[in-house]
Amino acid sequence: MPVFAPLFPPSHKSLFRGKSLPTLLLQLRHRFFSVSSADTASPPMDASSSEVAAVSRRLQTVITTNGGGAGNREAFRQAVVNTLERRLFYIPSFKIYRGVAGLYDYGPPGCAVKSNVLAFWRQHFVLEENMLEVDCPCVTPEIVLKASGHVEKFTDLMVKDEKTGNCYRADHLLKDYCKDKLDKDLTLSAEKFNEFKHVLAVLDDLSAEELGAKLKQYGITAPDTNNPLSDPYPFNLMFQTSIGPSGLSPGYMRPETAQGIFVNFKDLYYYNGNRLPFAAAQIGQAFRNEISPRQGLLRVREFTLAEIEHFVDPEDKSHPKFSDVADLEFLMFPRELQLAGESSKSLVLGEAVKKGIVNNETLGYFIGRVYLFLTQLGIEKERLRFRQHLPNEMAHYAADCWDAEIECSYGWIECVGIADRSAYDLHAHTVCSNLIAFPSWIYLVHTALKVKFL
Amino acid sequence: MPVFAPLFPPSHKSLFRGKSLPTLLLQLRHRFFSVSSADTASPPMDASSSEVAAVSRRLQTVITTNGGGAGNREAFRQAVVNTLERRLFYIPSFKIYRGVAGLYDYGPPGCAVKSNVLAFWRQHFVLEENMLEVDCPCVTPEIVLKASGHVEKFTDLMVKDEKTGNCYRADHLLKDYCKDKLDKDLTLSAEKFNEFKHVLAVLDDLSAEELGAKLKQYGITAPDTNNPLSDPYPFNLMFQTSIGPSGLSPGYMRPETAQGIFVNFKDLYYYNGNRLPFAAAQIGQAFRNEISPRQGLLRVREFTLAEIEHFVDPEDKSHPKFSDVADLEFLMFPRELQLAGESSKSLVLGEAVKKGIVNNETLGYFIGRVYLFLTQLGIEKERLRFRQHLPNEMAHYAADCWDAEIECSYGWIECVGIADRSAYDLHAHTVCSNLIAFPSWIYLVHTALKVKFL
Repeated sequence: MPVFAPLFPPSHKSLFRGKSLPTLLLQLRHRFFSVSSADTASPPMDASSSEVAAVSRRLQTVITTNGGGAGNREAFRQAVVNTLERRLFYIPSFKIYRGVAGLYDYGPPGCAVKSNVLAFWRQHFVLEENMLEVDCPCVTPEIVLKASGHVEKFTDLMVKDEKTGNCYRADHLLKDYCKDKLDKDLTLSAEKFNEFKHVLAVLDDLSAEELGAKLKQYGITAPDTNNPLSDPYPFNLMFQTSIGPSGLSPGYMRPETAQGIFVNFKDLYYYNGNRLPFAAAQIGQAFRNEISPRQGLLRVREFTLAEIEHFVDPEDKSHPKFSDVADLEFLMFPRELQLAGESSKSLVLGEAVKKGIVNNETLGYFIGRVYLFLTQLGIEKERLRFRQHLPNEMAHYAADCWDAEIECSYGWIECVGIADRSAYDLHAHTVCSNLIAFPSWIYLVHTALKVKFL
Repeated sequence: MPVFAPLFPPSHKSLFRGKSLPTLLLQLRHRFFSVSSADTASPPMDASSSEVAAVSRRLQTVITTNGGGAGNREAFRQAVVNTLERRLFYIPSFKIYRGVAGLYDYGPPGCAVKSNVLAFWRQHFVLEENMLEVDCPCVTPEIVLKASGHVEKFTDLMVKDEKTGNCYRADHLLKDYCKDKLDKDLTLSAEKFNEFKHVLAVLDDLSAEELGAKLKQYGITAPDTNNPLSDPYPFNLMFQTSIGPSGLSPGYMRPETAQGIFVNFKDLYYYNGNRLPFAAAQIGQAFRNEISPRQGLLRVREFTLAEIEHFVDPEDKSHPKFSDVADLEFLMFPRELQLAGESSKSLVLGEAVKKGIVNNETLGYFIGRVYLFLTQLGIEKERLRFRQHLPNEMAHYAADCWDAEIECSYGWIECVGIADRSAYDLHAHTVCSNLIAFPSWIYLVHTALKVKFL
């Protein structure tokens, strides 16, 4: 039974069947639930009520007018975005100074959504599961992010317009080109068709040189100017700064909240009576200096991240509460189905673990808990699937990874990542901090659970 | 009647009478109050209960052993700090890498305190007063902070150890020197005594040249090495960064959350039906790259700030709900009493406004609401006073400023600032953003209310 009643009455709900809803709207469906313990509905919530009714009416008009076929996705999304912006759900930041790409403010109704989602997250994960919450600074010294590998590897490949200096993500340009050809070029030969399909499939694995060669081969130029492009080169996505007045202590704004948990592992383990398993959680800001942010709220330069690191004995990845979620049945998309070109399939979680589709009980338990979190939040079951990472998507140290994906007007979008990352980070910090006490822990395995608020 | 029951039972509470409590302990007194609406007490809260009993027992031992006179402040504080750190209320950040001065993590019990204080703040101010909450990014482009004056003026005067390059705040060195002389030099002449007293009184007004001259006159050297010091020069306290990949868009981590409200004023005013007065609020991280942070959690490089900007018509600063707080009576410290060398005095708020001690009803209303917030949070009345800024403490554009100060082991410490800042920021953004629509608003006055979580 859902903890929260859906925002839209059933008659409105039916409007959205068969439509792709932008993610923010899915969140919007929960902004009524107050964290306050006051008995009476507070006035801002009343005000929100009329807002929601107005948004709902507007959406209905758009759908009625445009029919609702897949071709209307863009118009539909634009109508929703316009409404949400006008009603101050969110606002491009620093708008009076022409804004900054990838930075958004939440206005009063957006803040209400966010505050309620976070309160529910804390209730569902931290309190119900007895997790140890921590709250670490965003400013992080370089040594920590060197150990975690972010200084060296947290990069995207970038190309520059050789005349204007404008920057683009190299893989995005290649992806757009291939998609455009596949969608719009009706004269495409079967051979070319397969070639573009293949490029899209291996896009994430291409080196700077291979990506550069492809851009050249297809004659891809800068999107706005048609100017020639530079060769691709790695750009680190962290915001850099300097800590203290000396100028000698480089630092970065954290790109994830997890490292704050790892560096405190020793204290948290002690706090837990030197017992395993235990989980630690953190909610906070994360920063990524994206090369050229687009897709509205989906790819932003600053966002709130809620992360859980669950530490288990690698010899025993069973979970005492797995039976609570074993009977859940929902859409899963194992790598075998993806590789065979099939679509996702409804599976019983207990069966998926028994058959080895999901690597272990602990990972399975968190998949089940995330499923309950998202559906209780109001995400429709038909628009939610758990997709397993393909071998080439996973870091070399990871044992198994599943993303919770929600279908919205941009397609299926990852919103939660659940990974068995082995003891990679703990090992790295053990080595880099020269802590003698750490080696006994490097065999621990942790499961990283990230929820990203889009 | 307090919204929250005190954490310590009455028998424990009496322990603290006549003692100076560190601020964090005062917050600690409220960590039991769950934001969750679940009926049953959740396990983390149960675990916290035994923590608190243990902390309480330990404090009792310290007090019994040391007597409790003023001379034991330092020992008392150290005992509290040790206990709080060991129990993971807070932890020096990145400890396994030897830490970074001025950065602290909250552990599980610290997170529970923070989460409950923020939930109560939102309830007491945002929901009860119908405020418009916003949530803006920390990363801020330079143009915004140039307009607000932070790029030019958000500085402290710094001196460097000429051999090691270590940096110090010039005013802190001079302050320490004078205090040390006043406290410990029993041979001090009456003339010298008055001179040091005078230096302390005018410390905040000294220019770089005057401060440098004083340091030279007293032969003050670097604290750890006794090496000579450089002349004082201004150091900007903002963490600088670069937005986007071009390297051409300088930005800073915001030093306060208020500017996010000001730049959205136009939209928020519209959202409020173009009516005055209204208030906007924001809770979020703020960053200050302190020269040499000390005093534990009191002066840190990153902290959570909760701010309110209340916009009123400058022709009518009356407040419709002032009568709700007019009868409150508490310790106030108007500038006349400070200048006459007297101590704070219990005043009825309504009288203070009527007599013009507090500039206007709106300012008075917020002083009353802050008093209710802090006392309902558990701050003892005897340890709470509202101190008016002296003319030399206020910015030139401010009409009147009051700080809520709490007495702790560091003395009376500002924890909330309540200021009638006139329309300074709105005017600045109007001019700098070239918005034609803004001039009609520059005559508005706002009251800034900042709550800083130490």
